[in-house]
Amino acid sequence: MDESRFLLDLLLILLAARLLAEVATRLKSPAVIVELLAGVVLGPSLLGWMTPDTTLHLLAEIGIILLLFEVGLETDVRSLARTGGQSVLVAVAGFVLPFLFGFGVAHDLLGLDLLPSLFVGGTLTATSIGITVRVLADLKRQASREGQVVLGAAVLDDVMGVVLLALLYEFSTGGGISLVNTGKVLLFVILFFVLAAPAAKIISVVIKRFDAVSEVPGLVPTTIVALVLFFAWLAHAVGAPQLLGGFAAGLALSRRFFLPFGSALHEDPVFALRVEKEMKPIVHLFTPIFFVMVGLSLNLREIDWSSGFIWLFSGALLVAAVLGKLLGALIVREPWPARWIIGTAMIPRGEVGLIFAELGRSSGILDGQAQAGLVLVIALTTLCPPFVMKWLYRRHGQLLNATTI
Amino acid sequence: MDESRFLLDLLLILLAARLLAEVATRLKSPAVIVELLAGVVLGPSLLGWMTPDTTLHLLAEIGIILLLFEVGLETDVRSLARTGGQSVLVAVAGFVLPFLFGFGVAHDLLGLDLLPSLFVGGTLTATSIGITVRVLADLKRQASREGQVVLGAAVLDDVMGVVLLALLYEFSTGGGISLVNTGKVLLFVILFFVLAAPAAKIISVVIKRFDAVSEVPGLVPTTIVALVLFFAWLAHAVGAPQLLGGFAAGLALSRRFFLPFGSALHEDPVFALRVEKEMKPIVHLFTPIFFVMVGLSLNLREIDWSSGFIWLFSGALLVAAVLGKLLGALIVREPWPARWIIGTAMIPRGEVGLIFAELGRSSGILDGQAQAGLVLVIALTTLCPPFVMKWLYRRHGQLLNATTI
Repeated sequence: MDESRFLLDLLLILLAARLLAEVATRLKSPAVIVELLAGVVLGPSLLGWMTPDTTLHLLAEIGIILLLFEVGLETDVRSLARTGGQSVLVAVAGFVLPFLFGFGVAHDLLGLDLLPSLFVGGTLTATSIGITVRVLADLKRQASREGQVVLGAAVLDDVMGVVLLALLYEFSTGGGISLVNTGKVLLFVILFFVLAAPAAKIISVVIKRFDAVSEVPGLVPTTIVALVLFFAWLAHAVGAPQLLGGFAAGLALSRRFFLPFGSALHEDPVFALRVEKEMKPIVHLFTPIFFVMVGLSLNLREIDWSSGFIWLFSGALLVAAVLGKLLGALIVREPWPARWIIGTAMIPRGEVGLIFAELGRSSGILDGQAQAGLVLVIALTTLCPPFVMKWLYRRHGQLLNATTI
Repeated sequence: MDESRFLLDLLLILLAARLLAEVATRLKSPAVIVELLAGVVLGPSLLGWMTPDTTLHLLAEIGIILLLFEVGLETDVRSLARTGGQSVLVAVAGFVLPFLFGFGVAHDLLGLDLLPSLFVGGTLTATSIGITVRVLADLKRQASREGQVVLGAAVLDDVMGVVLLALLYEFSTGGGISLVNTGKVLLFVILFFVLAAPAAKIISVVIKRFDAVSEVPGLVPTTIVALVLFFAWLAHAVGAPQLLGGFAAGLALSRRFFLPFGSALHEDPVFALRVEKEMKPIVHLFTPIFFVMVGLSLNLREIDWSSGFIWLFSGALLVAAVLGKLLGALIVREPWPARWIIGTAMIPRGEVGLIFAELGRSSGILDGQAQAGLVLVIALTTLCPPFVMKWLYRRHGQLLNATTI
């Protein structure tokens, strides 16, 4: 029976992720890598016990939205504003350079057509906020100065990546770039970011009022999850990725959130703490599902390893993907170890890159080999940087602690 | 897009359930009725904004399993044992009488064939543990003596109902009653109940050990949910309903659980309290989804209200359903108000009844009208008793408080 099968799959995902994560922390490795690995092991690449089905996919989506909600909740907006300039620099350079390098490799080195080459370049643009944040959190460097620079930059280049995706999609289906649609998408995304956070703040005040008089248990988890889902839905409706809605909602409810229009809505650390406390078990339950599902969606068996093309394609793109992000970080005004860490932290690609590759394939613009190569590059950029970051922190951690804000 | 639509549906379910529940408690009504009502309003019966899709159905299933887990967690096993005899009496009488009455109405009054009549009788047997418990909890009478009698009886007649369902299913597909299969199902269910609780207890000790040394946050929610899912899956695998697995897991982890084989596994109230605290937000998030989904799955528009048959059929069956459960409760040795409350609390049918009706229709044994009539009876038995119980408690509450154990 289907229902029973689903319970078993979900249980295997939770258990495999947890078991491997416990082993990984004993070996001093970040847990997120082995959660991806759990997916690779359970999925079509190795054991083939399960395939990513619709329901698991939706739960994973809720997982990444809730993770970004938690990230927002723990983000110090004032320190993010302080690192703002550097984040913009890292984001723009880390968006433009991988796009140009990727496009160049595909178009000039490998001789792909214009449209596939644009898709290849686009795939390399967006850093995976989820994976990067998780690695920083595993290393307990999420609130550090370099952590905040990376977070800001990752949010920004995710937005840019999604706008580019909308643009390329329009380009490939409409037969040409529509300036009107591009302008509309841009406008909506900007409006969303300007309005979402204060709106979520106002809603949270309403929830707090209800909380004071409610007699039905479970007000905080149900209404806060509904609030997060609403902003995720809203983000999608205006053309931004859903996880940014989660981030905006978390930001608005964070204890350190500073409203531009002042003190009319008093801060309430007790309520914010309660939201954090009741939401944490829910976030921790859903988050591993996302990372396991990323591993599940990589079918390493589908790749034709004997072809020379796949090695050249993915090798050259891997260099482009790594260099593009690193160079952008090396120009910021931070201590040198911090520049290397920021650059490394920006390397993991994830959700948006996978969406690019999948959309390119499903619309017939990329062939199976090119898509497999891109997925391989995404996997490698995701799997290796955490180890490099751990090594960098071990070597330069002392120096960086002095600059923590 | 499908994904965005799902987020919207889930958000509407959570919000509608919460808003109506807040209104209901102001009007001193149990919240569970209006959560069903939220489903009726959002679903095909009224607004038609959503239909019960697979993912929502699976989330609802997790919701009812987790609710039964919480029920088990809060059950006082020793007081359940003290009310055991009365529970068995209520359960057996409340199983046999509705079955006989329902069969009689269908076969002798309305002239249905043998097999459809058996299905109609079966539909009336099983009390909805979920709805009954929720009503008792809303009235804060879950831990009372009569609450424990009802809980025990509801668990027992759910098991009997499911065994009957397996039997009738075998009867209808295999063309005859197979004694071997019946024996096997019975044996498995008994084995499950004997072994599940101690097994869950042992697993919880392992989780506690891990908890003491784990550095990855979220151990309790992920492993406890995995444990609950495992027992739900196991229950289904041995032929029992999944929610009984959740109940068994909760029972084993409850603070008052008494292991037959003694004191080797020490009680740890601190860990049990932590499990309760971290699981509550998750339970409260998922539970309303189940009750809204029950409302969603009732399509009141599909019923042909102009036919005389539907009124006779559902009217006569409603009397059978109410009398069958009431008579069983009136023979127990409790104060008279408690007998009436126990009888009323046993009346709501739900999951198992709906499964009977649905299976009867999909296997071609019941026609659309008969199935609609059964669904109507289930809806009425679910919607009305909470009001009667509230009224009984208002009248006799003082008297019953004295007998609380």
